[in-house]
Amino acid sequence: MPGFSTKCMLFPVALTLLSGVAARYTPDWGSLDSRPLPSWYDEAKFGIFVHWGVFAVPGFGSEWFWWHWQGEPTKAYVEFMKKNYPPGFSYPEFAPDFRAQFFDPDQWAEVFEASGAKYVVLTSKHHEGFTTWGSPHSWNWNSVDTGPHRDLVGDLGVAVRKRSLHYGLYNSLYEWFHPLYLADKKTGFKTQEFVSTKLMPELHDLVNRYKPDLIWSDGDWEAPDSYWNSTEFLAWLYNDSPVKDSVVTNDRWGAGCSCKHGGYFNCEDKYTPGHLPKHKWEKCTSVDIFSWGYRRTMHLKELLDLPSIIKDLVITVALGGNYLLNVGPTAEGMIPVVFEERLRGVGDWLRVNGEAVYASRPWRVQTENSTVPVWYTSKGSRVYAFLLSRPPKPTLELLAPITSPLTNVTLLGYSAPLKWSPLQPAGLTVTLPLESFFDGHVWILRLDSVL
Amino acid sequence: MPGFSTKCMLFPVALTLLSGVAARYTPDWGSLDSRPLPSWYDEAKFGIFVHWGVFAVPGFGSEWFWWHWQGEPTKAYVEFMKKNYPPGFSYPEFAPDFRAQFFDPDQWAEVFEASGAKYVVLTSKHHEGFTTWGSPHSWNWNSVDTGPHRDLVGDLGVAVRKRSLHYGLYNSLYEWFHPLYLADKKTGFKTQEFVSTKLMPELHDLVNRYKPDLIWSDGDWEAPDSYWNSTEFLAWLYNDSPVKDSVVTNDRWGAGCSCKHGGYFNCEDKYTPGHLPKHKWEKCTSVDIFSWGYRRTMHLKELLDLPSIIKDLVITVALGGNYLLNVGPTAEGMIPVVFEERLRGVGDWLRVNGEAVYASRPWRVQTENSTVPVWYTSKGSRVYAFLLSRPPKPTLELLAPITSPLTNVTLLGYSAPLKWSPLQPAGLTVTLPLESFFDGHVWILRLDSVL
Amino acid sequence: MPGFSTKCMLFPVALTLLSGVAARYTPDWGSLDSRPLPSWYDEAKFGIFVHWGVFAVPGFGSEWFWWHWQGEPTKAYVEFMKKNYPPGFSYPEFAPDFRAQFFDPDQWAEVFEASGAKYVVLTSKHHEGFTTWGSPHSWNWNSVDTGPHRDLVGDLGVAVRKRSLHYGLYNSLYEWFHPLYLADKKTGFKTQEFVSTKLMPELHDLVNRYKPDLIWSDGDWEAPDSYWNSTEFLAWLYNDSPVKDSVVTNDRWGAGCSCKHGGYFNCEDKYTPGHLPKHKWEKCTSVDIFSWGYRRTMHLKELLDLPSIIKDLVITVALGGNYLLNVGPTAEGMIPVVFEERLRGVGDWLRVNGEAVYASRPWRVQTENSTVPVWYTSKGSRVYAFLLSRPPKPTLELLAPITSPLTNVTLLGYSAPLKWSPLQPAGLTVTLPLESFFDGHVWILRLDSVL
Amino acid sequence: MPGFSTKCMLFPVALTLLSGVAARYTPDWGSLDSRPLPSWYDEAKFGIFVHWGVFAVPGFGSEWFWWHWQGEPTKAYVEFMKKNYPPGFSYPEFAPDFRAQFFDPDQWAEVFEASGAKYVVLTSKHHEGFTTWGSPHSWNWNSVDTGPHRDLVGDLGVAVRKRSLHYGLYNSLYEWFHPLYLADKKTGFKTQEFVSTKLMPELHDLVNRYKPDLIWSDGDWEAPDSYWNSTEFLAWLYNDSPVKDSVVTNDRWGAGCSCKHGGYFNCEDKYTPGHLPKHKWEKCTSVDIFSWGYRRTMHLKELLDLPSIIKDLVITVALGGNYLLNVGPTAEGMIPVVFEERLRGVGDWLRVNGEAVYASRPWRVQTENSTVPVWYTSKGSRVYAFLLSRPPKPTLELLAPITSPLTNVTLLGYSAPLKWSPLQPAGLTVTLPLESFFDGHVWILRLDSVL
Repeated sequence: MPGFSTKCMLFPVALTLLSGVAARYTPDWGSLDSRPLPSWYDEAKFGIFVHWGVFAVPGFGSEWFWWHWQGEPTKAYVEFMKKNYPPGFSYPEFAPDFRAQFFDPDQWAEVFEASGAKYVVLTSKHHEGFTTWGSPHSWNWNSVDTGPHRDLVGDLGVAVRKRSLHYGLYNSLYEWFHPLYLADKKTGFKTQEFVSTKLMPELHDLVNRYKPDLIWSDGDWEAPDSYWNSTEFLAWLYNDSPVKDSVVTNDRWGAGCSCKHGGYFNCEDKYTPGHLPKHKWEKCTSVDIFSWGYRRTMHLKELLDLPSIIKDLVITVALGGNYLLNVGPTAEGMIPVVFEERLRGVGDWLRVNGEAVYASRPWRVQTENSTVPVWYTSKGSRVYAFLLSRPPKPTLELLAPITSPLTNVTLLGYSAPLKWSPLQPAGLTVTLPLESFFDGHVWILRLDSVL
Repeated sequence: MPGFSTKCMLFPVALTLLSGVAARYTPDWGSLDSRPLPSWYDEAKFGIFVHWGVFAVPGFGSEWFWWHWQGEPTKAYVEFMKKNYPPGFSYPEFAPDFRAQFFDPDQWAEVFEASGAKYVVLTSKHHEGFTTWGSPHSWNWNSVDTGPHRDLVGDLGVAVRKRSLHYGLYNSLYEWFHPLYLADKKTGFKTQEFVSTKLMPELHDLVNRYKPDLIWSDGDWEAPDSYWNSTEFLAWLYNDSPVKDSVVTNDRWGAGCSCKHGGYFNCEDKYTPGHLPKHKWEKCTSVDIFSWGYRRTMHLKELLDLPSIIKDLVITVALGGNYLLNVGPTAEGMIPVVFEERLRGVGDWLRVNGEAVYASRPWRVQTENSTVPVWYTSKGSRVYAFLLSRPPKPTLELLAPITSPLTNVTLLGYSAPLKWSPLQPAGLTVTLPLESFFDGHVWILRLDSVL
Repeated sequence: MPGFSTKCMLFPVALTLLSGVAARYTPDWGSLDSRPLPSWYDEAKFGIFVHWGVFAVPGFGSEWFWWHWQGEPTKAYVEFMKKNYPPGFSYPEFAPDFRAQFFDPDQWAEVFEASGAKYVVLTSKHHEGFTTWGSPHSWNWNSVDTGPHRDLVGDLGVAVRKRSLHYGLYNSLYEWFHPLYLADKKTGFKTQEFVSTKLMPELHDLVNRYKPDLIWSDGDWEAPDSYWNSTEFLAWLYNDSPVKDSVVTNDRWGAGCSCKHGGYFNCEDKYTPGHLPKHKWEKCTSVDIFSWGYRRTMHLKELLDLPSIIKDLVITVALGGNYLLNVGPTAEGMIPVVFEERLRGVGDWLRVNGEAVYASRPWRVQTENSTVPVWYTSKGSRVYAFLLSRPPKPTLELLAPITSPLTNVTLLGYSAPLKWSPLQPAGLTVTLPLESFFDGHVWILRLDSVL
Repeated sequence: MPGFSTKCMLFPVALTLLSGVAARYTPDWGSLDSRPLPSWYDEAKFGIFVHWGVFAVPGFGSEWFWWHWQGEPTKAYVEFMKKNYPPGFSYPEFAPDFRAQFFDPDQWAEVFEASGAKYVVLTSKHHEGFTTWGSPHSWNWNSVDTGPHRDLVGDLGVAVRKRSLHYGLYNSLYEWFHPLYLADKKTGFKTQEFVSTKLMPELHDLVNRYKPDLIWSDGDWEAPDSYWNSTEFLAWLYNDSPVKDSVVTNDRWGAGCSCKHGGYFNCEDKYTPGHLPKHKWEKCTSVDIFSWGYRRTMHLKELLDLPSIIKDLVITVALGGNYLLNVGPTAEGMIPVVFEERLRGVGDWLRVNGEAVYASRPWRVQTENSTVPVWYTSKGSRVYAFLLSRPPKPTLELLAPITSPLTNVTLLGYSAPLKWSPLQPAGLTVTLPLESFFDGHVWILRLDSVL
């Protein structure tokens, strides 16, 4: 059994039960890290990440457009601006073209649900500082005052929750060009004007207003958690906020926190561990290999194809992680059809194979490679073997499972039970109906009553 | 042998040979219809249609946007304009936003080539009247004077021909709102000011400048060919133009002409005949089921999927037609990635199976449906059977082919010859390697030495 | 009596009377030049010129903006575009910003009437080719299809005529960048495609539609009148058009025509003759010294002040000319207030002094300079002496008038008759009420019964 | 002698001198009101007010556009937006069109200097909240981050001071739609989040950065001075700011303060007292009668003409006030020419008559109306009599001055001394050179050695 679940699930529950009253967390990592992760999160396994903001208007390079253009000027970005805009044009002037005129949150939610995802995380504010809700602390630099003239965070939340998906909000702590942040930075983060007059009031307001199930913190790396007031914020979040019991957070709360403190661990973007970690983690990745935000210039070869996504999801889940797959909507409010196709494709696969994914647990063995690469999940004595490539012949060997006379083997999506015979000292040989392996991505054998 | 080839290929060649000098066509359908279709066209089988114009800017409804908004006002279009634009906004004011800033003709051509298409047809002018080249007869209403500031027709032509694809140009005879056209229409087409001062000079200029291999005429239906001066134009095109020997045209040259006169027949949009026609024809259809031009609001379910496209292509070719598949690029000059994916998907299939398509001829039987739906093409005694669905079992019966001892059966893309046995009175049974049928779209059996 | 009036007024009238039927003009200058100028024009004396078009949008340099930017690129213009617009921006893209949203033709007409002007001349098409009416020969490059979405020529005409002002239309024969014109030019004006398919149909349509009282032709200089078909057009205008009896034209009908042929003579812009010409003429000039079209960057020192305008008007009228004073409205449809102020200022002066101007005739002497500069007009034996500067002392000498015992001297705007005494051999001394000379611009003495 | 000068000039000076060290003001009105007004202000007499901000973009109605459109919606404004903008357009979206591309601060300063003004006051932030400098507390809602991309406050300041004019800054305390302000307002101004996190830090920054000679406070009326922290701010301004010795302020520092506390008194906009006030005051008024900000739709009849302005200035100065005349520049950065004309007109008059204005003091009598309306100023025993209308006859009676044998009478701008004779019991009769009264506005008699 993986260590992290023991630690995360049992210890703090005990704490609460023993004391007889709700435990209060103190604003230090020792206390905060002891909080058990609300169970919905580990069971969900698959979420959709949505990067949406003013960066969708230039839709060039990536959602880091502003930075590559003016923070650390990069040739391609500078040239793009020179070629297409009048001299002196500034990033805030993109905002009125962030129209979202075709944004239909119910249609988005339908796609997300159809993808089989169980939670959705939207950027409420990226490093550009533009809030996709009417933040009173970001006057005239938010989606209600300009551009969409709409509460994107609120509207998507209602639609997503109508379909029983969990709703998370991404929030960047730092803002590349906020003058108060830059002033604090200039002092070596000895002053905290940005944090006290902007960040904290805004974050509290966000939580109180939208009651997110997940806070996906980012943009923490330039300053220590003490600058960001992270532990104070989390203590409030866990003790007194309206989402104190259900909220999940990640690990980006200050330089050095990532992969160490907080809720689950993201570690780096697109991080995948080499073996089963002790702590619950999430792999975030993007259909567009080069960007999280929408790029108007994307080409097919720069996107993950469906088989790669499914394999990535499988490996992540087998290693105890959640898989957060990102799409970048257009400034007009559309999910590009090719992304819709990917998401529905994952959903088609999950409709057949989801029982091996949702609420599954890592098995005692994560992977083996006898006939083809195989990854495992489990639910008690039921073990799922994910075949990551089409077997070259109709007999497949699995060496890790220990069979019993009660053992039963099934191909998910295929009605008849499969023939198998035990191997020595462990393992089994299964006979596969290869003519039924037509869809091209990852097939799953369910092994009942194995060890 | 289908009748049309006899008529088209032999007779006029004879005419030329007999007279010893180039035959000159007279401006009447009798003479013009007698011209043989240049052979490149029938051999090509598969082309890409590109609808690009100002309509990509609203990108709403279809390329008939202007008409549905202001010609015969339709609620959805009128509401769209009311909701998103200031009162009084007019269609010509969309033009500056037709930027084509990302238009990379070489990248387009690479995608078109990768699709396996052998020709490309671009809208040089749709019913809106906007020319995608610097027409001197459409001053300030063309892509050089405004919007892209670029010769789209010319630039795409160069790129497409660099890859040895044929290059055709779509041209709409009528222009919904051209005041000179409307004035002619008001007289019951008794005056021809539009044709003599606008249409004809422009069309001659277009041919002389770009030397298209194909002219895809459209927008003919409101007036007779005599109004359009169609026969005079075609006589010039066939006798004296720089493309007199190679150019191909279609059949939309005046009310009542379609499916009767001209070069090959399009008949109606998306038309498929019930059985093998006597005259060379082409099916034009669009990946986006609802539009030829780009729609910003398209969703996955409104697009043809790859298997449907391949089946449609197969049936068309089996019936002696060419298949012209349309994509609508964005106002920014991108081919939406989901379209790129479709095109590359067709190309992947054609790379394996193209020998059954290119330069093939309809067989004496077009289709049968014994085990699964099957369509045929041929090259002499080599016959290709296209299986349109996955066979339910490893033995397949084909009733139409008459085998001989020399008969050999192969699955395209699969190395080993297949086992087969003759049926009585005709036909054969083939044993299929079903475990190799993985890709989900149309498999082809090559039958050598059959009748 | 000035010679030109004899020639212009008497001879052709005689021609008509003698023949008993309306004379028909033949398309040659001999015949056309013999047409008498309709009398309203000479009586009017003062008109308003309005230069309005797309050039008001950049509002920079002058209405020749396009030419100085791209025809013969001039640094200031090129820099202006570089600094303020994205690369590749083209002139036609200014058109949507020609909004005319505040255009109130009745308010304009009220100002023009208040100025004392008796006619108004609007640019129906300047060298840019943009028509300020819905010309069917200038599709999508006119004020109805784009920009104002309004028939500016028609709307102003209605308002101006409601106030009994005459209405004239400026028309440029050439269009700097019209591709058909450029093609003709390339042939040394041996072809006339521009004239036959664009210019002439459009000009006929303009006359038939708006029935202008005056056609102010311009842009003739690059080609001979034979290229422009000018004599044919004028023959039609004088013989068969709906304005054949009332219409007035000027003299810009082909290279070498100006100051020689046509209706009245403009000669060069802002031309003033050194002495009384034999032919009726008009001085056109602009309040903005540097531009006819609106300049967003104009400063006070670049404008004519009111005294200069009044003096210029006086000298022009004394020399037998009409005075056509130009204002350039903004792209928004406003007459800049400083122009309104000038126009109302002229009107204030004319309300007191107009009797010396309207329907006056040049006198036998145009000017003298005894005490102060003086210019003369007359109505029979009533002579008006315009004092162009404030007299330094209360006695003024006029040497030209020959008094009689019946002679009476009055200061316009001042009730009591003035004391005077004759001089020898001619002339008189007048005693002036200098304390009444307060307004600062040109005072007029009316001399009754002098020779 | 008017009371306020005694109080303002003598008492605090004494305070400072007696104590031997700089007096420190305490944050209460008793202390703050005791501060003497720096002397430059009273001597200046005439200043230019400049209202410039995003409101210049719609340029409709007045600078209160946003309020009349969306605060208390008024028909004309709502209709204007409906007619000219797409639905949902918001006020912040005007900002990118505030281009200021023609803004030439040196040219502005030249005009202001030519007007004879001695100080200039620019709106650094109006009620819309947009700062015309790069305020770090108004990120992306200021003239550096968007629109002009320029430090308007800084650039104008440099130009104005180069010409030795004093430089003042207008600042609105409240911001109609700032969400933090609205939140404070909702609490009945019991919270001060807006003041502490936005207003105060910004105002300190403004003073430290630009060192204004004058702070023209406004927008105070909805809340008490205690909410605004006004007395604390003023105490800092007078004690510790870099402009503590030179800065002048007005009286709008909280509901009920106006006309009671602060520096000089503005009382209401355009306020003129009925008789000589005891406290230094300023009349602010605008050339455009209906607006302080630029209106694109202004007409001549809605503007003050030059004589009215000069008379207004004269009466104000005679009553001990300063005259602050407003012009509204365009969004493009131009001072409309008609405003330039007014300003240069005042300057022309002041160049002749300024000695009666600058550094003058109210006389013991302010006005009389014997022959024509007359207003007085003085410099010791030299008294200036301003004649507000042209005398009807060459003899003028003044009843208030008490002459002596040394008395000398001159007409400013006229070289020779005038004849006069004393009246009984007081006053004098002056003989005027009426033929020299040509310019139409206010003539001044200098009376030396009168009582």
